Amino acid sequence: MRISELASSSGVPIATIKYYIREGLLPAGRPVAANQADYGEDHLRRLRLVRALVAVRGLPVSTAADVLAVLGDGRGESVHRTLSRVLAAMDTARARDPAASDAGLAEVHGLVAAMGWHIPPRSAAVDALARALDALDQLGIRFGTRALLPYARLAERTARVDLDLLAAPAGGDPAEHAVLLAVLLEPALLVLRRMAQEHHSAAHGPDPAQPGGADRP
Amino acid sequence: MRISELASSSGVPIATIKYYIREGLLPAGRPVAANQADYGEDHLRRLRLVRALVAVRGLPVSTAADVLAVLGDGRGESVHRTLSRVLAAMDTARARDPAASDAGLAEVHGLVAAMGWHIPPRSAAVDALARALDALDQLGIRFGTRALLPYARLAERTARVDLDLLAAPAGGDPAEHAVLLAVLLEPALLVLRRMAQEHHSAAHGPDPAQPGGADRP
Repeated sequence: MRISELASSSGVPIATIKYYIREGLLPAGRPVAANQADYGEDHLRRLRLVRALVAVRGLPVSTAADVLAVLGDGRGESVHRTLSRVLAAMDTARARDPAASDAGLAEVHGLVAAMGWHIPPRSAAVDALARALDALDQLGIRFGTRALLPYARLAERTARVDLDLLAAPAGGDPAEHAVLLAVLLEPALLVLRRMAQEHHSAAHGPDPAQPGGADRP
Repeated sequence: MRISELASSSGVPIATIKYYIREGLLPAGRPVAANQADYGEDHLRRLRLVRALVAVRGLPVSTAADVLAVLGDGRGESVHRTLSRVLAAMDTARARDPAASDAGLAEVHGLVAAMGWHIPPRSAAVDALARALDALDQLGIRFGTRALLPYARLAERTARVDLDLLAAPAGGDPAEHAVLLAVLLEPALLVLRRMAQEHHSAAHGPDPAQPGGADRP
């Protein structure tokens, strides 16, 4: 199909499609004339994936390009390996943030040890979590290993649900599936937490004396 | 203190501080001369909160302004009520996104019913989740009530941990605490999920035949 058809099928403007091609998120079309290229179903599919990462997930274009590059060269590897490389691609894009404090890192290392997780001590995820603790600390809120533990245990169970989904036969490209689960489900998970908070806030709003309410286990 | 001291104490450039004042995120200083204003500890504290929302959490400045406005007028109300208003402020900022499909909304309503959550059927959170499902659907991935349920149950437990933290006496402003938990913990929770995924990906990477691995319960 022509670029104009690709635009109308995907709902993405031609100028945006050209921008994605220049930035390496989308392969160029097959040249068929001096000033014309042909695009196939693969382009349409990849374009929808790009839109999901950039417009729905809100990833910077450069990060989306890093994540998509992972898809290109992982044929035949396990979904766990692909997921691992997707996580690394998401992480490198954040390396420009300021460094985490030693105190923040110590809390995160304590958490990793308590959870029995095998993660490199200077992994970008460790750094990101330590920086989040630093930000809270600067606001006078001490949030360390002990406060994080219940959240980490729930995150552990969430990751198991992820892996169950990844292990289920789903049709389509398993590597793409891994990307979608790692990246696109993130906003959905945050919204679910907000919905649960909303439910409990509404249920217990009028009574400041009993924040947990009567329906606690 | 002068604006130059506020800048050096907070690490935020003077131009950025002036921008935050113009956008209503930070109150103006007390005028002490024709071209000079005085800033206090309250300014420094509020500035750190702004930075946490904008630079650490990555909120758009307009959303951060909406969230901070909630803090201003909720003295004396319960933390649940404040949390509820913070969630609403976060949501209105996303109302410009495209509308969710009826199919997506039906899946989310099914989930809300299955969880027994009391949430308005056209709440912005419901819309946001339906849009996330729409994005997955466009990529050929059906993700509905059934697939969401295990995540919703974990989100429910996460919200209970949040409420336990909110209920604990922490010193400082309870409303600010609610904002920090609702907004600033979000990236930390996503990072925890990534860390757990990283642990399991590394542990099970070489063996595509056993995605769940041997350490499953």
